[in-house]
Amino acid sequence: MNYSKRVKKLQAKLRRKKVDALLVSQPENRRYLSGYRGGDHGIGETSGVLIIPSSGPIYLLTDFRYQLQAEKDVPWATVLIYRKGVLKLLSKLLPDLKVKNMGFESHYTLHSVAEKMKVSLGKKGIKLVPTVDLIERMRIIKDEDEIALIRASVRLNEEVFQEIFPTISKTQNEIEVALAIESLMRRKGAESASFDSIIATGKNGALPHAVPGNSHIKLNKCLTIDMGLVLQGYCSDMTRNFVPGKASKKYIKLHRLVRKAQLAGMNSIRAGIVGRNVDKKARKIIDDAGYGSNFGHGLGHGVGLAVHEEPRLSPLSSKKLRAGMIVTVEPGVYIPGWGGIRLENMVVVREDGYENLNKDMTWLDI
Amino acid sequence: MNYSKRVKKLQAKLRRKKVDALLVSQPENRRYLSGYRGGDHGIGETSGVLIIPSSGPIYLLTDFRYQLQAEKDVPWATVLIYRKGVLKLLSKLLPDLKVKNMGFESHYTLHSVAEKMKVSLGKKGIKLVPTVDLIERMRIIKDEDEIALIRASVRLNEEVFQEIFPTISKTQNEIEVALAIESLMRRKGAESASFDSIIATGKNGALPHAVPGNSHIKLNKCLTIDMGLVLQGYCSDMTRNFVPGKASKKYIKLHRLVRKAQLAGMNSIRAGIVGRNVDKKARKIIDDAGYGSNFGHGLGHGVGLAVHEEPRLSPLSSKKLRAGMIVTVEPGVYIPGWGGIRLENMVVVREDGYENLNKDMTWLDI
Repeated sequence: MNYSKRVKKLQAKLRRKKVDALLVSQPENRRYLSGYRGGDHGIGETSGVLIIPSSGPIYLLTDFRYQLQAEKDVPWATVLIYRKGVLKLLSKLLPDLKVKNMGFESHYTLHSVAEKMKVSLGKKGIKLVPTVDLIERMRIIKDEDEIALIRASVRLNEEVFQEIFPTISKTQNEIEVALAIESLMRRKGAESASFDSIIATGKNGALPHAVPGNSHIKLNKCLTIDMGLVLQGYCSDMTRNFVPGKASKKYIKLHRLVRKAQLAGMNSIRAGIVGRNVDKKARKIIDDAGYGSNFGHGLGHGVGLAVHEEPRLSPLSSKKLRAGMIVTVEPGVYIPGWGGIRLENMVVVREDGYENLNKDMTWLDI
Repeated sequence: MNYSKRVKKLQAKLRRKKVDALLVSQPENRRYLSGYRGGDHGIGETSGVLIIPSSGPIYLLTDFRYQLQAEKDVPWATVLIYRKGVLKLLSKLLPDLKVKNMGFESHYTLHSVAEKMKVSLGKKGIKLVPTVDLIERMRIIKDEDEIALIRASVRLNEEVFQEIFPTISKTQNEIEVALAIESLMRRKGAESASFDSIIATGKNGALPHAVPGNSHIKLNKCLTIDMGLVLQGYCSDMTRNFVPGKASKKYIKLHRLVRKAQLAGMNSIRAGIVGRNVDKKARKIIDDAGYGSNFGHGLGHGVGLAVHEEPRLSPLSSKKLRAGMIVTVEPGVYIPGWGGIRLENMVVVREDGYENLNKDMTWLDI
């Protein structure tokens, strides 16, 4: 990855905004700019922050626990270790760097932390400048190197699904299927799952975000598997829906309906179309069949270093798709007391259409 | 769990602060007050928020995806579904509830979200009141019901360790050991691991927060296993350090040193002692042996619904311990190029001492 090109592009943005340095705390943004792989324990316990001055070399501030990791991952940054909190170190470093206006990520900084920074940096004559999505707007368009990594992530995810699929049996419960999937992901080289796998048998499928439980896999009932992994930092996300055993007529009818909606959504994708219009193409199919109220979520979301990122494909999204964006297309129909069907692929937006990253094998067209 | 008692206690606090309602977004706080188990995708993608009026029944606001889960988990709350974002729903609900001053969790609200709320609720004449740790200050003291759940979580975690311990072999790499542990946790009924297990063989142990990798388990070298699970919402956290094969004299010397420091820390614990003084008791042992600079982190942290919570035991913590707090005691010595040793137990602070929640079996006293 060409980290230095990304940093230079961001620095040009900072100079235009008259920001002398940007504090980067969002973990995927940190990794995008520097390659640092340190893992946070939620927003409250960071494994480090970057300081990107508006020109010149960058700094990675972290604590003792992550020192070796930081030095290994980011040899091109100056790694500084704080022992009494990052704020004390910033109060020393920023005046040395002659920073007067310091940008911070308003969308990934806690209100209480921003208030503390305002007070403590204010004493040094430093003004805080809230910024939003500066780096996310760069991340939203993937270059071909990134697309290749995401393609590999999608392929590995499908490979895991194809291996697990024939092993699923009614002797297993949802948790055991989830574990089999997540173990295989890691044995095949994934860093981790990109989210907790959703395995929902029978009625449980009516919850789009079902948590796997002790329910045994039911024969002749619908089964939803929503799974994704992280490979070299990049996420995949795929949902397949099928019936172990014999599918009912109702299942087949609804599965085909959801697939038709998915294809309508996918086929509308090209650079220039507005997100909500992609959603509308798919939603219309489900609405027209009388199941509109059973499809309560947006059609899709961007995927990259984060498994959920911009752009969104929803009735609310007014953003135009551009070439190099990567989105999921995942319509669903959820029927309380019966179950649910969701089918999810990932596609790359191209100038004149789209590239389907999935191979569409088992149980998509039935 | 007596949720209604907790809500009433919080409501009394709100009335004292002249806050008409509190918006609760922090996931463990949400669960503590209501039992809601919905899982967030990070702070940016919530599975719902609670509105706790200063008196009367509570509200759970969520979106379509979590509706069934919310209604199942929290039948005693009014569940409201937002389709156009939580802010729009709040703008309708809060005036109906006659809320003039709305508290929010400053330490779990993004700066950008607080700014948007300020504008949109301001139009309705509602003032935002930042609050910090209102519910965390209740959570810090565990009642005997909670202690029983945490004890069960610690026991199950030890049971997993005891089963995995004899199966560890040099044919496995760190990731495979981590997977074996995490699978067994879930098969034994844990909701999940409470954090990504740390499995660090040989030199890798010099990183206190090592990420498991492809290194095979080395014979006659140190191995660190730091693992924890979530059972009925409550976390455990334990570190054991040992040598598969024959331990060197250096290993034995350092292991005994760390154990001595751990016991010194544990034995100082009783209601009334200040956090940093517990840290000091353990640190002095390591300092006196000449390894002070190899112990770069705090001695321990609180554990409850979150695996890292208040109080901290560190050179900076000025908080007095009180009966019913639960903390880890985990000194360590890390030597770059050689490896590391950390030993971690969990203890309950009692009026006149402490209760060790661990059984201290394999490879603690050597």
